[in-house]
Amino acid sequence: MTTWIDLNADLGESFGQWPMGDDEAMLDIVSSANIACGFHAGDPTGIRRACAAALERGVVVGAHVGYRDLAGFGRRYIDVDPVELEADVLYQLAALDGICRSLGGRVRYVKPHGALYNTAAKDDVQATAVATAVATYDPSLTMIGLPGSRLLAAAERAGLSAVGEAFADRGYTADGSLVSRREPGAVLSDPEAVSSRMVDLVRSGSVPTVDGGEVAVDARTICTHGDSPGAVAMARAVRGALDAAGVAVRSFVDPTGAAA
Amino acid sequence: MTTWIDLNADLGESFGQWPMGDDEAMLDIVSSANIACGFHAGDPTGIRRACAAALERGVVVGAHVGYRDLAGFGRRYIDVDPVELEADVLYQLAALDGICRSLGGRVRYVKPHGALYNTAAKDDVQATAVATAVATYDPSLTMIGLPGSRLLAAAERAGLSAVGEAFADRGYTADGSLVSRREPGAVLSDPEAVSSRMVDLVRSGSVPTVDGGEVAVDARTICTHGDSPGAVAMARAVRGALDAAGVAVRSFVDPTGAAA
Amino acid sequence: MTTWIDLNADLGESFGQWPMGDDEAMLDIVSSANIACGFHAGDPTGIRRACAAALERGVVVGAHVGYRDLAGFGRRYIDVDPVELEADVLYQLAALDGICRSLGGRVRYVKPHGALYNTAAKDDVQATAVATAVATYDPSLTMIGLPGSRLLAAAERAGLSAVGEAFADRGYTADGSLVSRREPGAVLSDPEAVSSRMVDLVRSGSVPTVDGGEVAVDARTICTHGDSPGAVAMARAVRGALDAAGVAVRSFVDPTGAAA
Amino acid sequence: MTTWIDLNADLGESFGQWPMGDDEAMLDIVSSANIACGFHAGDPTGIRRACAAALERGVVVGAHVGYRDLAGFGRRYIDVDPVELEADVLYQLAALDGICRSLGGRVRYVKPHGALYNTAAKDDVQATAVATAVATYDPSLTMIGLPGSRLLAAAERAGLSAVGEAFADRGYTADGSLVSRREPGAVLSDPEAVSSRMVDLVRSGSVPTVDGGEVAVDARTICTHGDSPGAVAMARAVRGALDAAGVAVRSFVDPTGAAA
Repeated sequence: MTTWIDLNADLGESFGQWPMGDDEAMLDIVSSANIACGFHAGDPTGIRRACAAALERGVVVGAHVGYRDLAGFGRRYIDVDPVELEADVLYQLAALDGICRSLGGRVRYVKPHGALYNTAAKDDVQATAVATAVATYDPSLTMIGLPGSRLLAAAERAGLSAVGEAFADRGYTADGSLVSRREPGAVLSDPEAVSSRMVDLVRSGSVPTVDGGEVAVDARTICTHGDSPGAVAMARAVRGALDAAGVAVRSFVDPTGAAA
Repeated sequence: MTTWIDLNADLGESFGQWPMGDDEAMLDIVSSANIACGFHAGDPTGIRRACAAALERGVVVGAHVGYRDLAGFGRRYIDVDPVELEADVLYQLAALDGICRSLGGRVRYVKPHGALYNTAAKDDVQATAVATAVATYDPSLTMIGLPGSRLLAAAERAGLSAVGEAFADRGYTADGSLVSRREPGAVLSDPEAVSSRMVDLVRSGSVPTVDGGEVAVDARTICTHGDSPGAVAMARAVRGALDAAGVAVRSFVDPTGAAA
Repeated sequence: MTTWIDLNADLGESFGQWPMGDDEAMLDIVSSANIACGFHAGDPTGIRRACAAALERGVVVGAHVGYRDLAGFGRRYIDVDPVELEADVLYQLAALDGICRSLGGRVRYVKPHGALYNTAAKDDVQATAVATAVATYDPSLTMIGLPGSRLLAAAERAGLSAVGEAFADRGYTADGSLVSRREPGAVLSDPEAVSSRMVDLVRSGSVPTVDGGEVAVDARTICTHGDSPGAVAMARAVRGALDAAGVAVRSFVDPTGAAA
Repeated sequence: MTTWIDLNADLGESFGQWPMGDDEAMLDIVSSANIACGFHAGDPTGIRRACAAALERGVVVGAHVGYRDLAGFGRRYIDVDPVELEADVLYQLAALDGICRSLGGRVRYVKPHGALYNTAAKDDVQATAVATAVATYDPSLTMIGLPGSRLLAAAERAGLSAVGEAFADRGYTADGSLVSRREPGAVLSDPEAVSSRMVDLVRSGSVPTVDGGEVAVDARTICTHGDSPGAVAMARAVRGALDAAGVAVRSFVDPTGAAA
């Protein structure tokens, strides 16, 4: 079992006069920052600020690419033509990476956001479009996605490193998928229970399921949500538990940008 | 006097289902392509297509950065805070450059679009914001602007190369500024007369003025408009006249990206 | 069989500096104008101009409501929450109707656009959201949709008049549905053949199918596309054939706004 | 002196997943709700919710029309052509009024937002465009603006009722204009002092100035800001002081919609 894990959170999600989340607080907790790229959230000024704050702390920056849908915050499936989706992802990734470069850093990974994440987990066409865009831009980038997802398979076919993700505050079914938000047990709210599960995940590679069993989850990064009330406290609890258990919290990329 | 000149045109200005201009035809005429970056025009799919078409032909790509105003096509002055304008320009430039990089090319220069071009010509605050964004991203880039403008002065202060621009189909006053579109003589529509003026400009460094004199115009690039009816014919006439006069049409940057 | 039919076309689809279609020409041909409401196309200035031009000619105005997706022109399915879809439709309808009212007219019907039209044809949830919005706004309005669609059923449940639509230039299968655009025979391009089919439709209530048979199509309005090359010529041919056959081209609403 | 005053606040300013302000709390305090119309803030779902909440409480609804600039929250001057501005205002007003009508209510007044408010105070062209749009839509509507502004003059020329506005938490200069936000004394933060000033305003028709004098302010409505921290507490303090002083807080329109 690994003795380290990556913690990631969604950041840079403010837009104009509308704030969202507490980027500064989260950046003191996580090792990877999924920064919005302007299509589902984020404006250039806020994106730049989030990149600068992440890079200052040595937090690794990833491109949180999404559907072009500010009104829906990228949480609504859009039946985008794959040629257009590939260009949309390329544009977002390029914009974020260029901003990071101007600050002396780089984007090191890509994680699709919201409905694009969910769609790319099971739909080969959109998964391939996302992976192709990323590999076209820079084949040394890593893709984050659901373990066993079409997205990670597409990423590997495209020559990218692929990193599986666990969700700190979500329940799992016996087959390793997330409990639907319409079912009981979908979202866990007790910081202590969540923290304990995540320490177990790192140690054993598995998490308890809603039906009382255990399921293997092949994850090298843990997502902690950044935009809900209590998000910072939950993330801090998970981080604290990992630290206490002697688990190193660090990115899956090494400082030279190669996949760890 | 130089025996060469650059010809530039605005390209990549389609948006979704709305086409604009004839990029393919213009790319066979010009040596520099000002490609829209998505804020005043251009969507990622069309931008990528325009970049690919330019790079295939060896036409140099520039970032045509504008105000965030699709509904106004970037032609309306917006009183943007300079911190936000700087980030907006950085984001657009980064997106376009990243798309070019993914195609094996690079953005070589920046030309503000529409109302931003006009504002940055005379307003130090916006001029400085644009120049700072560009220099922060890549100090080897060139800025195109009105000769004698605040924009070119700000570009030079920021360490960028600055290239003055002449407008093929616009009338000039005795002080070298453009005749206001509200005045007679503002826009010239005779391809032969326009072509002849541009050959003279290259040879003598000056153009005839509306009041019958001559004025020096310090330009190493000529803008030919790409989106009006007759635009392609006008550009082709100018190009033909320059070719016939033995004037080389080429970019102000050399193939290694250094300012010529 | 009826001796009249309505002809409708999509208008007001320009956006900012991007023109689309020839509204003036189409308004001399059709009896109903589906005017874009700003979410998939149309800006307030162009919408107002289209409304004024329609009302001047006595062409009946309908609200062409769509998904909030300018970049996709409303042609991409979006998994919008029905509460939000209902509000989106209400907003669009209200905006267009208020503009018509300021010109002395009224919106008389609603026709969903693009992907919303297709989705509402078969998905009860989105169909009901659209119908509820319209009935909430004004129960005297008529809904245009595919004959036999969920949308028209939802409209009737909501107390609205429902009018079936035929497509002049589309092939039909034996079950009365449109031939998929991925199959041969989906789009008809011969104005004479199209015109002849539409005259037959009015007289017999049926159209020829791609496999050589006939199928009943319960339509009181015919859609002629307005935004493709040749659209005006096609619409003019259909109109000419109907006129020559003694078929009255008129709206399905009478001048007082009641369903005919 | 009047023994009543109107209290207004900006509401409905959330957008998608980004909340802003506490509409429910403010609606228990104010008599007039300036509801965003979607151009600078507000999405249809939130706008509809704000309208319903206002109408349920008998709070009068006004259209808070703004520049088309979500990224700038309507706080940046845009040099919009007056023909386009008129259509933009008409569209926003129509959308909001239609939503109110569907809820059994009506928009009773218009108040421009942010940079449009400031521009229309001193620029005849934009003031006239706004007033013309409103009068074209419904000449029985009232316009809120700065006392003595070009906007109120244009409104009166257009046949609208015009109502002057005071700002509860802003300092005034000797000529009755607001102290610039760049100067000391621009914004007042002590709820008690602010409340006391507003009671005095209602009783005496004047407010203290930054230089220790008094200036007449011809206002029948007081703006209390809704989107800053402490906004609800400030508004509640002002309301409480007015109630305690026996000043009736009510709209400037009577229940039948006529100007009071």
